[in-house]
Amino acid sequence: MKKKILMSRQYPKTKNMTIENSLLKKMRQDAVDIFNEGLGAVDPKTCIHRCCRLKRNVFTVNNRAYDLNKFERIIVLGAGKAGASMANAMEKILQNRITAGIVIVKYKHVENLKRITMVEAGHPVPDANSVAGAEKLLKMAQKADENTLVICLISGGGSALMTLPAHGLTLEDKQKTTEVLLGCGATIHGINTIRKHLSRIKGGLLAKAVYPAPVICLVLSDVVGDDLDIIASGPAVPDRGTFEQCLKIIETHGIKDCLPSTVLQYLKKGSQGLIPETPKQGHPVFENIFHTIIASNINALLSAEKKAGDLKYHTQILSSMIEGQTIDVATVHTAIAKEILATGHPLKPPACILSGGETTVTMKGNGKGGRNQEFALACALKIKGLEHVVILSAGTDGTDGPTDAAGAIADHTTIQRAVAQGLTPEQFLNENNAYPFFDHISDLFKTGPTNTNVMDLRIILIR
Amino acid sequence: MKKKILMSRQYPKTKNMTIENSLLKKMRQDAVDIFNEGLGAVDPKTCIHRCCRLKRNVFTVNNRAYDLNKFERIIVLGAGKAGASMANAMEKILQNRITAGIVIVKYKHVENLKRITMVEAGHPVPDANSVAGAEKLLKMAQKADENTLVICLISGGGSALMTLPAHGLTLEDKQKTTEVLLGCGATIHGINTIRKHLSRIKGGLLAKAVYPAPVICLVLSDVVGDDLDIIASGPAVPDRGTFEQCLKIIETHGIKDCLPSTVLQYLKKGSQGLIPETPKQGHPVFENIFHTIIASNINALLSAEKKAGDLKYHTQILSSMIEGQTIDVATVHTAIAKEILATGHPLKPPACILSGGETTVTMKGNGKGGRNQEFALACALKIKGLEHVVILSAGTDGTDGPTDAAGAIADHTTIQRAVAQGLTPEQFLNENNAYPFFDHISDLFKTGPTNTNVMDLRIILIR
Repeated sequence: MKKKILMSRQYPKTKNMTIENSLLKKMRQDAVDIFNEGLGAVDPKTCIHRCCRLKRNVFTVNNRAYDLNKFERIIVLGAGKAGASMANAMEKILQNRITAGIVIVKYKHVENLKRITMVEAGHPVPDANSVAGAEKLLKMAQKADENTLVICLISGGGSALMTLPAHGLTLEDKQKTTEVLLGCGATIHGINTIRKHLSRIKGGLLAKAVYPAPVICLVLSDVVGDDLDIIASGPAVPDRGTFEQCLKIIETHGIKDCLPSTVLQYLKKGSQGLIPETPKQGHPVFENIFHTIIASNINALLSAEKKAGDLKYHTQILSSMIEGQTIDVATVHTAIAKEILATGHPLKPPACILSGGETTVTMKGNGKGGRNQEFALACALKIKGLEHVVILSAGTDGTDGPTDAAGAIADHTTIQRAVAQGLTPEQFLNENNAYPFFDHISDLFKTGPTNTNVMDLRIILIR
Repeated sequence: MKKKILMSRQYPKTKNMTIENSLLKKMRQDAVDIFNEGLGAVDPKTCIHRCCRLKRNVFTVNNRAYDLNKFERIIVLGAGKAGASMANAMEKILQNRITAGIVIVKYKHVENLKRITMVEAGHPVPDANSVAGAEKLLKMAQKADENTLVICLISGGGSALMTLPAHGLTLEDKQKTTEVLLGCGATIHGINTIRKHLSRIKGGLLAKAVYPAPVICLVLSDVVGDDLDIIASGPAVPDRGTFEQCLKIIETHGIKDCLPSTVLQYLKKGSQGLIPETPKQGHPVFENIFHTIIASNINALLSAEKKAGDLKYHTQILSSMIEGQTIDVATVHTAIAKEILATGHPLKPPACILSGGETTVTMKGNGKGGRNQEFALACALKIKGLEHVVILSAGTDGTDGPTDAAGAIADHTTIQRAVAQGLTPEQFLNENNAYPFFDHISDLFKTGPTNTNVMDLRIILIR
């Protein structure tokens, strides 16, 4: 059922030559293999081919059938890090039946497409291309009518990639707002509530644009709980947030003075009813929309679990919904590893603890890193000297924070090797500077763009 | 093997009358029963009777035998929250063979003793009684000779309860120093290094006082990892720190000007060799000392695990070593609960997740609460609306922070019930004000002093 689509070439073996211990080397390779297996299960192509089929001009998505004879046009609209890969799969299935399409993807996250136009744009910080792409996409959406079948390909990152500031606001306004929100410790839910209310396409507004065309929304989930209104800021989903709530989030985090005044004024006008609210549950624009989640973090974990079992580890999925401050989440994960070593709870060694989700880093320093690299560094400090523990934490999209690494790999020798090179690990952690730390000791984990995105995977191996 | 020593009278059933759901009521009672079973396993009396035996004048501690005919005197010295209970058990076993003894206990943590004197003193802030008690204890220790068998009863809280400032220093000097250290972000290891070097009894100095008498140290562990030199600041354990290191810690944290000048001068004199260092590994004073840990957090968890199994929950011990910021630890625990409800990982419902250890609360507000109450409140916010989840978090010593509650019990109706009473749960959490929150909705969990102390237990039930 699962296709092994990932070459080891794409996901290189860790290459640190100072590790002499052969068991440790084997464990590190196991961790990489388990990660790759998890990644394979959430490859958009695999997932789309699993749930979509075209037979005698009937297009079936998870047992829901669309008679293509009824439609004059099929358009494909999409945004997200997995956009190119999803579009490619859709072209393979529907081929020249696709009339036109636009997918907005992250720079370099591209594939060879025939009928669907790709627009490369900025992520995590949106840029002019995000706006131009979204403008183009919205125009195509607005042309849809009851004779058009709209296929939406939604994946994580779509929120930044498909940026269309509300009238009167600029990209810079939205960029500044996003920057402030990301830095203040607001939840992803809070950030998205505000972003939706500053947009012309998010929070159900894409659904409004294509109405009354029937819409099939294929979604690759990159959020905890798979909330459709969060993923890519729910362009075709009823919005639960309000202008009122936006103002409350800003107040809670005390960021009023950091935001552009135009943004504040816009939100205030909205809260006074001077700007239409985003469409809510029960709104007619959602009548003909069918959503299906083609994969989420748990699919990757389940596949990783199977691989770890094949490698003879006693394996457990802790949760696909792990959130919280990265360092404290690391502390809990290492506490479990220590208990496994001390008493064989919750698993006897050799053990593999798997978790997914996405943690938060509240920046203290000006370093370079990402939540996965920080997780690995925090773990390394906690497991210093324990034998044998290996930790791999990485983003399934291949990008961890604003770095070219997907994450990092750590083991009980990490701190010792770093100190031997004159590094002070605590200082790197305090300064949110995990990238140079792991770069120095050659333990960054790089995959390049994976063209998928179901948050992070954490793999802890204990022998 | 285990004695059921806890009456339900001592550990009252939760009495909230607004909970209509009978399944939920049953789950809440299950959580309390599981907690009590865990507590029963770490009752100092049970533990001491399990490892100590007197037969034909031979006193055996975990297969190590002491022929009492060889000793003229047996003295019992102890400090900690479990002191009275441990002393009581020791009196039951050795009866009138005990010559004399002193245990320093927390106010009201008393029992009816016959031969061992109890001194009640301040905790967590030491007071004049801590000093007077320690002075008395040290005098008795110094009288021990090779014909004396010394039995030390060490438990958590002993560090504050047995406070004896070094010559030339006052209690206020030590208090001020502790306050500065706690506020400067020093590690617990650093704090203890300094505290030991300002004491006449900690860091192995009690061992020095009783030398050359043989010593049996019975220890109830209240620290993650069961480090003997941390529990009650290791009065009979080789010290790893030095005067030199104390000065370095002070320098690192830039707190030189905040500390009493007498303290600084004392440490400087020590670093110049003018005051004897604490005894180190290999020092002859440790020749005749036998340490045994009579119970720690994992024992409580193992017993709780058995009880939960009897109650037909699929049960798992996550770790006895959980540390980290309380809210983030709560986030991870609830992520596991959510996964159990969503996919049956890591356990299928009905499930029970158990964890132990001690989390940290970094105060933002001036509220009243403790880490367990804060954990329960943070969890309640995360599981709002999920059915059916019950969370009990409580300190095994019966005290959570500076409150008269051991912890609190929360379920998926907690937030709803609180909001119905006009409370804003997020505000209570932001102000570290969980005590009044749970007080309002009658969900504080009170046990009174339990006379034991193996950190906290967290019980999460999911159906």
